[in-house]
Amino acid sequence: MSHSFHPPQRILMGPGPSDVSARVLGALGRPTIGHLDPLFIELMDDTKQLLQYAFKTQNELTIPLSAPGSAGMEAAFVNLVSPGDTVIVCQNGVFGGRMKENVERCGAHAVMVQDRWGDPVDPQKVEEAFAAHPEANLLAFVHAETSTGVRSDAKTLCELAQRHDALTIVDTVTSLGGIDLCVDDWGADAVYSGTQKCLSCVPGLSPMTFSAKAVARIQNRATKVQSWFLDMQLVMGYWGGNTKRAYHHTAPVNALYALHESLLILQEEGLDASFARHRENHLELVSGLEAMGLSMAVAPDWRLPQLNAVCIPDGIDDAAVRSRLLHEFNLEIGAGLGELAGKQWRIGLMGHASSRVNVQQCLTALRHVLGH
Amino acid sequence: MSHSFHPPQRILMGPGPSDVSARVLGALGRPTIGHLDPLFIELMDDTKQLLQYAFKTQNELTIPLSAPGSAGMEAAFVNLVSPGDTVIVCQNGVFGGRMKENVERCGAHAVMVQDRWGDPVDPQKVEEAFAAHPEANLLAFVHAETSTGVRSDAKTLCELAQRHDALTIVDTVTSLGGIDLCVDDWGADAVYSGTQKCLSCVPGLSPMTFSAKAVARIQNRATKVQSWFLDMQLVMGYWGGNTKRAYHHTAPVNALYALHESLLILQEEGLDASFARHRENHLELVSGLEAMGLSMAVAPDWRLPQLNAVCIPDGIDDAAVRSRLLHEFNLEIGAGLGELAGKQWRIGLMGHASSRVNVQQCLTALRHVLGH
Repeated sequence: MSHSFHPPQRILMGPGPSDVSARVLGALGRPTIGHLDPLFIELMDDTKQLLQYAFKTQNELTIPLSAPGSAGMEAAFVNLVSPGDTVIVCQNGVFGGRMKENVERCGAHAVMVQDRWGDPVDPQKVEEAFAAHPEANLLAFVHAETSTGVRSDAKTLCELAQRHDALTIVDTVTSLGGIDLCVDDWGADAVYSGTQKCLSCVPGLSPMTFSAKAVARIQNRATKVQSWFLDMQLVMGYWGGNTKRAYHHTAPVNALYALHESLLILQEEGLDASFARHRENHLELVSGLEAMGLSMAVAPDWRLPQLNAVCIPDGIDDAAVRSRLLHEFNLEIGAGLGELAGKQWRIGLMGHASSRVNVQQCLTALRHVLGH
Repeated sequence: MSHSFHPPQRILMGPGPSDVSARVLGALGRPTIGHLDPLFIELMDDTKQLLQYAFKTQNELTIPLSAPGSAGMEAAFVNLVSPGDTVIVCQNGVFGGRMKENVERCGAHAVMVQDRWGDPVDPQKVEEAFAAHPEANLLAFVHAETSTGVRSDAKTLCELAQRHDALTIVDTVTSLGGIDLCVDDWGADAVYSGTQKCLSCVPGLSPMTFSAKAVARIQNRATKVQSWFLDMQLVMGYWGGNTKRAYHHTAPVNALYALHESLLILQEEGLDASFARHRENHLELVSGLEAMGLSMAVAPDWRLPQLNAVCIPDGIDDAAVRSRLLHEFNLEIGAGLGELAGKQWRIGLMGHASSRVNVQQCLTALRHVLGH
């Protein structure tokens, strides 16, 4: 290639990134200023407040990590887990498996609670895991499984952990801004998300929030956090409080402009209105898909409105369909991940991309390509 | 605040981020596409080639890491260091200390080679460290110390490591694109940089390259890399070769548009022309500063043209001067870091910011504020 890259205008209805609005792209492209500039510090402070609104939390340590959601997951584990700990990890999709990897790379023991991919986490099994492993001091689960389109009951799981004096790590990469997420009400302790899902910001940052109990555990660690870059005691020195900010790393200045703008848009709409919009467009999509003879992979109560898992009918060439959608309609939908590859499509209706126009375009394009 | 953020147009002459050109900002703000889109894969391949040009390497594993330079440093260490290893770390500024932290958090032993902040690394001391620690299998040093404005002799240090059968980790955060950097000629093994210095791209990514010997060491590790996010065996699955790309994390799509554009600009100018421009503007700045009675902190042979360490005269209020430059002239210069805080300024002439216009604006503003 070796010439300037001019991407086409896609309609992003996969598992993320979702469509980024012109308003957010405009913010992204504003002039770069220094990461210790007083005006940038004001932006950081305002971003923290907007994130507190989005997460429904008063947690002081509420920041965007300067790396993607996968690094947010790792930051939660390396800060809260010490070598020799026992961690209960719920797996009902790809990302529970990644949590297990994180626990083990921290030198700790992961007790796995397995549920079928496509089902929510079963609290009864978690209860049994705590009974069998009273030494467990942490419960980790995914609120909205991006690989399966399933919501789990985060409130119940957090309560259960609290009864066993365990902290919680909650993956909200796909839930933040799309479905109700109540960090303080639930008493969740370390919560991470991504910017490229229901916030409809560019990928690359991970909004995170830590409860006072989580911060206390971090401050009382007997061993150093194994990652220097993700060590929250150091990150807090740059993002934290009213004290003079200490240089830790160079923040991704322009990406933070974009995140700030996307959080403003969410606040302007209001969380409840955003959740309602996601739900309405989801219902319209499901109704259109079912009218076409397609069936949803997840039971109605546990479906994520922002990520719709659809069974691929027998005899349909998965890759060929997605390729035609992309090339004939500039429409991206998601493939199945892990054991669901080839069996399901994942149709995202996330953030800015959750609109009636997109629902109709997607249905029209699918009808055309499937020959209905 | 809670309204859209409109940053002023600063002149960024600190230690980075440097000024980002309108062309790069334009690329940054283009429509987001999927991180597995075939067109994005083409962009990734082209970016790898442009990075090979910038690093002067044929290394296959040459990629931008999806996180800032600090994470690039950590990626080099966690992949090449195993628990119990002995690593020789050269320190002549802030970043050597950060290398030590990384070694220790990998469960390895750091043998420190200390030089005065403001001097280059002394190869004789490194030779002595290898003699005292024949078990050392890695040498780590900073090519261009951002905290002091000093270049070290990377070629000699790499040769020395090779004679002792040790691999090398070389920090080129501030050197890439600004001074000569010959990864293959030197035989450097793991080299990381940043985007926000002489590439004049937005902060947030870390260009990296690994030699075949480094890749072999990673592939033959007895223990897993302690970081899942930075595990190069996994990152290679997404960025690597001609095989089907495996999902690892969501790449920061728009930041990669910007990096691609900034690398194109570097290739259009040519490395040698870029180095010559950095050198000429540096000489003009030094001559103007000396005419004003200011003195440089680093001996001429070891000065970085892209980062000029200037002694703050007695009786001058460091913070007040920088604040006036920022508020009256929209000009950012850098404070001293670590033990040099309050003693030196760091004036960057990096990438797009290395121009005659900036040199003259900086000299004029400094003359005004210092009352010369």
